[in-house]
Amino acid sequence: MYHLHPTLAADTVHLGQLTLCDVLLMNNSNYTWLILVPRRADIKEIYELSEKDQHLMLKEMNHVAAQLATYTKAHKINMAAIGNQVEQLHLHIVARHRYDALWPKPIWGNTTPNPYSLQQQQELMLDLRALLAL
Amino acid sequence: MYHLHPTLAADTVHLGQLTLCDVLLMNNSNYTWLILVPRRADIKEIYELSEKDQHLMLKEMNHVAAQLATYTKAHKINMAAIGNQVEQLHLHIVARHRYDALWPKPIWGNTTPNPYSLQQQQELMLDLRALLAL
Repeated sequence: MYHLHPTLAADTVHLGQLTLCDVLLMNNSNYTWLILVPRRADIKEIYELSEKDQHLMLKEMNHVAAQLATYTKAHKINMAAIGNQVEQLHLHIVARHRYDALWPKPIWGNTTPNPYSLQQQQELMLDLRALLAL
Repeated sequence: MYHLHPTLAADTVHLGQLTLCDVLLMNNSNYTWLILVPRRADIKEIYELSEKDQHLMLKEMNHVAAQLATYTKAHKINMAAIGNQVEQLHLHIVARHRYDALWPKPIWGNTTPNPYSLQQQQELMLDLRALLAL
């Protein structure tokens, strides 16, 4: 049975659900950083999903990435499935800008969380839920 | 028209071609690190590929990731599409082990290349070409 990993739950805000994936917002105001988690139990790698689920994940990933790119005016979307610390399959989708603190370095393993204020978080959640039709 | 980006060509060995993607071996003996590059011009993001090409890319990515996991006995496969420095769409597929130098940190932006010896490289290329049916 699917349960969101407690580390992912602790580091993020739950934005909503797409057909396959939970959509999470990383609580780090330095980057607009979303995470998709397929609601399937005991999956570590993308190739362990059924073909149908893989196609759904691809569709949801593209939807989120394209909308995020437009909304943030990102120069580049960075995506990764790493899972060295949290094995539950989760896909990072991060909007990057040439003027951000770490550009052009990847953010994974290189950034310290800078939490949103409650007001920032609430405004962004409203925007992102509308944007992603959640 | 598609041309492999010169930075990707310089950092890797060309292993062969799948239906959509060129398959490259990063010349860094610290990690078995493959890169897939769809042979399509002017594509930066996965969602810019046609749906047919996206499904092909997914299939090729899964094929490479699953074979690489078996061959290297990896604890985890790490995948990413970053492209902050080389904009041509390319997908990293890296075998990670609990005993590797950077575990559990991601490798991107954190590792110095440690080139293969000519003999190591030739042996690995033979193995990988057989493994991936290239």
